Amino acid sequence: MSTASRIRCPQLRKRIMSAHDAAALIPSGVNVGMSGFTGAGYPKAVPQALADHIRAARARDERFRISVWTGASTAPELDGALAEVDGIELRLPYQSDPTCRQRINDGQMEYIDIHLSHVAQYAWSGFFGKLDIAVVEVAGVLEDGRLIPSSSIGNNKTWIDQADKVILEVNSGQSAGLEGMHDIYYGTALPPRRKPIQMTAADDRIGEQYLICPPEKVIAVVETDAPDRNSRFSEPDDTSKQIARHLLHFFEMEVEKKRLPQNLLPLQSGVGNIANAVMAGLNEGPFENLTAYTEVLQDGMLAMLKSGKLSKASATAFSLSPEANQELSDNIDFYRERIILRTQEISNHPEVIRRLGIIAMNGMIEADIYGNVNSTHVMGSRIMNGIGGSGDFARNGYLSVFMTPSTAKNGAISAIVPMVSHVDHTEHDVQIVVTEQGLADLRGLAPRQRARRIIENCAHPDFRPKLLDYFERACASGRGMHTPHLLGEALSWHQRFEESGQM
Amino acid sequence: MSTASRIRCPQLRKRIMSAHDAAALIPSGVNVGMSGFTGAGYPKAVPQALADHIRAARARDERFRISVWTGASTAPELDGALAEVDGIELRLPYQSDPTCRQRINDGQMEYIDIHLSHVAQYAWSGFFGKLDIAVVEVAGVLEDGRLIPSSSIGNNKTWIDQADKVILEVNSGQSAGLEGMHDIYYGTALPPRRKPIQMTAADDRIGEQYLICPPEKVIAVVETDAPDRNSRFSEPDDTSKQIARHLLHFFEMEVEKKRLPQNLLPLQSGVGNIANAVMAGLNEGPFENLTAYTEVLQDGMLAMLKSGKLSKASATAFSLSPEANQELSDNIDFYRERIILRTQEISNHPEVIRRLGIIAMNGMIEADIYGNVNSTHVMGSRIMNGIGGSGDFARNGYLSVFMTPSTAKNGAISAIVPMVSHVDHTEHDVQIVVTEQGLADLRGLAPRQRARRIIENCAHPDFRPKLLDYFERACASGRGMHTPHLLGEALSWHQRFEESGQM
Repeated sequence: MSTASRIRCPQLRKRIMSAHDAAALIPSGVNVGMSGFTGAGYPKAVPQALADHIRAARARDERFRISVWTGASTAPELDGALAEVDGIELRLPYQSDPTCRQRINDGQMEYIDIHLSHVAQYAWSGFFGKLDIAVVEVAGVLEDGRLIPSSSIGNNKTWIDQADKVILEVNSGQSAGLEGMHDIYYGTALPPRRKPIQMTAADDRIGEQYLICPPEKVIAVVETDAPDRNSRFSEPDDTSKQIARHLLHFFEMEVEKKRLPQNLLPLQSGVGNIANAVMAGLNEGPFENLTAYTEVLQDGMLAMLKSGKLSKASATAFSLSPEANQELSDNIDFYRERIILRTQEISNHPEVIRRLGIIAMNGMIEADIYGNVNSTHVMGSRIMNGIGGSGDFARNGYLSVFMTPSTAKNGAISAIVPMVSHVDHTEHDVQIVVTEQGLADLRGLAPRQRARRIIENCAHPDFRPKLLDYFERACASGRGMHTPHLLGEALSWHQRFEESGQM
Repeated sequence: MSTASRIRCPQLRKRIMSAHDAAALIPSGVNVGMSGFTGAGYPKAVPQALADHIRAARARDERFRISVWTGASTAPELDGALAEVDGIELRLPYQSDPTCRQRINDGQMEYIDIHLSHVAQYAWSGFFGKLDIAVVEVAGVLEDGRLIPSSSIGNNKTWIDQADKVILEVNSGQSAGLEGMHDIYYGTALPPRRKPIQMTAADDRIGEQYLICPPEKVIAVVETDAPDRNSRFSEPDDTSKQIARHLLHFFEMEVEKKRLPQNLLPLQSGVGNIANAVMAGLNEGPFENLTAYTEVLQDGMLAMLKSGKLSKASATAFSLSPEANQELSDNIDFYRERIILRTQEISNHPEVIRRLGIIAMNGMIEADIYGNVNSTHVMGSRIMNGIGGSGDFARNGYLSVFMTPSTAKNGAISAIVPMVSHVDHTEHDVQIVVTEQGLADLRGLAPRQRARRIIENCAHPDFRPKLLDYFERACASGRGMHTPHLLGEALSWHQRFEESGQM
């Protein structure tokens, strides 16, 4: 398929223009819904051209800022470029860009960190105000104007439905073979008109292959030919492999106790090296005919699809290394039969997650001795990325697993602390905590029992005696034995790190 | 219906015995699933008889403790009696009994505080171990052995299904007219065999009127004739009325902005005086044809059904004053057409709550300036009651509202604090905070914006300047401007209260 033939709709061909001209259609002060999820399928030209316009406006002493709503994280060409020129007033629902993060933590940009399953309904309900413009990357346009989605879907359906104006980027760098891989559910509604989502397996198709967009909404079409960020993940290190081993052993025991089927239940896996290590472990493990119902399809799952260990995978986005992306493109027919990309309101929908009985596996920054988890804030105040979909899966899944190395910063930081400095997942939502030291199964345990289990199984030996000392003194304090804490010391580990660089 | 005729099944009539004899069938060390939800439908004779056995065992220096699983809170005849003799090893998933609470906070009883929607599936999955015995109050037994549920359902279906042995209390004190009010859904399953729950309105019936129990499981039937606890709620005070007024005004504005339908969306309301005040406010307010999809039906909702403001209500339990209970009994035919009692896995099911678009209204102990909510712990360590269903509704509902008076203990405690001492509902799950001072709508606000809104709208004037001072010094600290905190001071308000009795 040549670049030209990617836009088969005559009406939309008339709207082709440069990124510079398209970006000029975005005024200051608007809410813009952009495509993009974990560095996949984000617009690559318009945001950078918009950054140029903003830079020029700044040079004229004009204020120029927009609000940016996406699926999840994007890439330097979007978040990086717009944050660099201080062009973002408000960012939601997730980011992981270094420049963005710096601006947020410097107090120069507002950021709302939202459960990914909530975003579409909040936007639709008008809780964030009016969405003015959508900027969406697609892989192509059919003759009748329907859109072939790109390497992520995220909130694109909602942005296109809700925005008055739509700017399309048609990226011929995306494999033409993506066509047919997507499943866009058009059955959502606002209450009281919602119906059951009739899905009972991770690979059920319930929607359309294409995004529907009234051509008259489209104010610009920009042609691009550029790859997704496709950053490389490092090979699993010993720590990640050890975490994976603990988790696999746990799964084997659960199957033995008949609390999990032989082929487990649909897997959700967060993004990162530990997640990839778990997938690598599963790829060499005893389980066959696995399925995945997750947000993001990383290298590890692609390898499992190739080996046959994983029979089907549902996600809302890819997040692949350049090598894995090449593998996907080279064998797109094989993968199209095994991968379904959905809107993120469905990939993360509480109804579907609960029904399918997902095994939720997510990373974290820290856990406390009672099993509360911090996924987002460094030392209580500074945002790292955001909660993403971890809450959707942990709360509504069948099992909720949180994983991290037991220390960070060369041992200066313990990932197990007396009290987390920010809570994203409460004690009520955390069942399994895993570090390279071991696994703590918290099911059926009361708080003080959880504390001993987490300290003994998960804390690094360098911090274990200090944690035990805190816990025992808290128990002896007479302040209350349900969840014993020493209020004056609970956050002292974080405070010590801030002051001395060492917990 | 005479007492005798309440047990129409000949096979079960043979199992009639005294509470003393029935309780003797419960040995030490077992897991017992009991009926009971918010002081309704709990067994009234067997737990007290069991407490006598335990007391006798203690006198013989024998250890005798059981684990008690229920729907939610019960009453002095169950939790109180068993806690009094130190007969409970582990309690889940909710309690509100003073003796229980004391033992938990003294470290003499383990307690697991669980989202009420999670309990049935965890028990079924074996996450809490084997359920040995069920002790369930019913209102009657049909000839074929099917059971007429009582004034609450809670987890009774699951207890009866999962336990090897069942002890029934047939309470002729419960209105015979309850028959036909219940809807027991038998369509649940463990994954991967779950199907959509085909419910699209709060008053849809999807199950059976009766509980099904194989008669051979029933090891004892005990006849009782005793009312539920039926504690009286005090008349709404000025503070509660003011909270209700703020909330009603908010609803009116949301309807005006077309973000809520004219008849709102199905209401969930926590238990207590503020909840009753909100219902009283709605009963005098402009909204017609309301519906409720909630856990507990209190006096306020009964009055709204009577007035016609509320057309239908779904719950899993009643919690009525003696007067309201009399009103229910006197007009049971009227109410039976308007009330549906369901199992708690359905009343609190994330799938249904999300689909119906529930307006979740729950009380809390405290909120912090960033919108994190503590529903369970006093000063971080001492349990009050438990999270109950608040998380099920707040996370998955359409709107999540948390309410409290702005101060407690005659002004010694501020309900708005720099950092909550325990988190049950994270910043991601809290949209609306209401005190008698005002309402803070947090939707679409980043953390620092939320802080100013909460301090200005919700904090008591006595604490407002101190909160603002904390916030501004945290912002000036340079530690990170996303969620500014002073780690050394964040919990100092609670610490000060512990030391001096004044925040």
